[in-house]
Amino acid sequence: MAWTRELSPLHDAREYDVVVSAGEQITAGLTAIALQAIGVSARSWMGWQIPVHTSAMHGSARIENIDPTALDERLEQGMTAVVAGFQGIAPDNRITTIGRGGGDTSAVAVAAAIKADRCDIYTDVDGVYTTDPRIVPKARRLEKVAYEEMLEMASLGAKVLQTRSVEIAMLHRVPVRVLSTFKPEAGGTLLCDEEDIVEKKPVTGIAYSRDEAKITLLRIPDRPGIAAAIFDPLADAGVNVDMIVQNVSEDGRKTDLTFTVTRGELARALDAIEKASGAIGYRELKSDANVAKVSVIGIGMRTHAGVAQTMFRTLAEKGINIQVISTSEIKVSVLIAEEYVELAVRALHSAYELDAA
Amino acid sequence: MAWTRELSPLHDAREYDVVVSAGEQITAGLTAIALQAIGVSARSWMGWQIPVHTSAMHGSARIENIDPTALDERLEQGMTAVVAGFQGIAPDNRITTIGRGGGDTSAVAVAAAIKADRCDIYTDVDGVYTTDPRIVPKARRLEKVAYEEMLEMASLGAKVLQTRSVEIAMLHRVPVRVLSTFKPEAGGTLLCDEEDIVEKKPVTGIAYSRDEAKITLLRIPDRPGIAAAIFDPLADAGVNVDMIVQNVSEDGRKTDLTFTVTRGELARALDAIEKASGAIGYRELKSDANVAKVSVIGIGMRTHAGVAQTMFRTLAEKGINIQVISTSEIKVSVLIAEEYVELAVRALHSAYELDAA
Repeated sequence: MAWTRELSPLHDAREYDVVVSAGEQITAGLTAIALQAIGVSARSWMGWQIPVHTSAMHGSARIENIDPTALDERLEQGMTAVVAGFQGIAPDNRITTIGRGGGDTSAVAVAAAIKADRCDIYTDVDGVYTTDPRIVPKARRLEKVAYEEMLEMASLGAKVLQTRSVEIAMLHRVPVRVLSTFKPEAGGTLLCDEEDIVEKKPVTGIAYSRDEAKITLLRIPDRPGIAAAIFDPLADAGVNVDMIVQNVSEDGRKTDLTFTVTRGELARALDAIEKASGAIGYRELKSDANVAKVSVIGIGMRTHAGVAQTMFRTLAEKGINIQVISTSEIKVSVLIAEEYVELAVRALHSAYELDAA
Repeated sequence: MAWTRELSPLHDAREYDVVVSAGEQITAGLTAIALQAIGVSARSWMGWQIPVHTSAMHGSARIENIDPTALDERLEQGMTAVVAGFQGIAPDNRITTIGRGGGDTSAVAVAAAIKADRCDIYTDVDGVYTTDPRIVPKARRLEKVAYEEMLEMASLGAKVLQTRSVEIAMLHRVPVRVLSTFKPEAGGTLLCDEEDIVEKKPVTGIAYSRDEAKITLLRIPDRPGIAAAIFDPLADAGVNVDMIVQNVSEDGRKTDLTFTVTRGELARALDAIEKASGAIGYRELKSDANVAKVSVIGIGMRTHAGVAQTMFRTLAEKGINIQVISTSEIKVSVLIAEEYVELAVRALHSAYELDAA
């Protein structure tokens, strides 16, 4: 909140939480009043009243435990509970907030605590799409998405739900429906167990992220311990490394290594590498912030072969060079020049037959 | 708050408290951040964190008990506590607010709980004056006021502090200093015990209230039980009666009775009397909302004679008719036509030698 920054750029995160949690307090109270006005027996609960126990990491606390007693009692009486999202209490009884998008996480965590049949999230989009409709007008809304697919999509840039909320839903097997606040009748998308999805296409969706930067170290010694010499200083600097590729060395003595970080962490990453240059011993350090990551995701990959090949062939046909590849059981990601990202996403969307009729 | 009224005119007072208490939550957090920014080790406490136990009367709850443990611990370490005013928790753990001016009451109650040497209240005026300076430019700021005097002044319309805060200060003997937020160097006014005031003038100040209405019942039976027949229905209707005067009956059979209520309660009072007209048996019911109450207040009255006489003579000299009189140990109040209120206050201020040199 701008007020807290005005007062002090290095403000106390605990007091910041006191200030920003007041917003959800007001919303919860007003929601209860609005529901009562249409005849619904509603009451509000703050995080500390339930209580929603979190870690002490103010500003981005982790929900650890929610006592369902008060809510269960309320619901058994056929009445309605309005729970202020985004907030909880730390072990020392101070107010915490659970970070950006924390409202979703609160909702799913409460649903898990009371063992709800389903958690409906009303948001600004009407569901999860096969890809970003701003890039691919033929993108289709998915009726169902498996938790694991959603996790990959969320972490790859499809910002419908906060990753943590999907993790909690998966862990407690809470079906979550994402609906538009403005046109709920559109139907939304249901997040569910893999087993609840009957027709498993090889690829469910195409995700992309422009928040990528590539770092390459040329001519590093090809010896045991070199990875630690590079990645330990990065970890110490708080830099998250995503994709990593190491070339096969030509002469068995020197090799090249490429990895990716988010753009915001590029300067910090380069600084950490340069400070460790003595221990690493590279000849040249190169970086490129004009890269993007494109990923195809689908639980169907587990049983369908040839998904990666289709991706590589499709990109090759469009003349798009793949710089780095990484794969998981249900995902293939490639790093490409940022200027090709729309072209790549559209081509892949067609290639996997995801286009709407 | 206007939002709650927009949603529902008959909103749930418990949810209203959730909404409006968020304001002090934000202020407390920001204050702690601002203090930290200038090097003060401050932290905030909400009502529920201390906790400040109140009655369950949402919107105008009464502070019942404040646990000083957390604050004492903090202060013993030489650190600063910022307590959100105006709020507490009800026995069922829901947020309460303590009504208009509740911030003062919270401050004095916290000061009493931690046995503070003094409670300083920074407000929009620089102290308590001998009377309203808007009416009497020669009004003087009082260095000291006794709790009892302040109680009379507060309830009579000098709205510097909430009555409840003065009651708590008096009960726990907490010296309270009222200071201007904008020019604290002006010195303010100290509320203290009567014994701490050395020079006791007969009159300390002149208060007035325009929020008055007069009701007269003509020719009621002069018999035992008539007062109950009139005032019981008023009490049942929630009307507070202030001044009462009953004429001596001429013939021992019929008499007249006059009493005052606040203007806001006039319609309700007349309605209650009319409904009980059969049991009372008056000939005529008259009311007048164009009246005001002027009071002279001073602990010095206990030892100085002739205070009331000076008042009556001064008003008579200005041709002001006294409609009703009521007195207490440290106060004389008269009801007059509202149009004379400024004249009366100015004349009395001079008569009791309160004018600034």
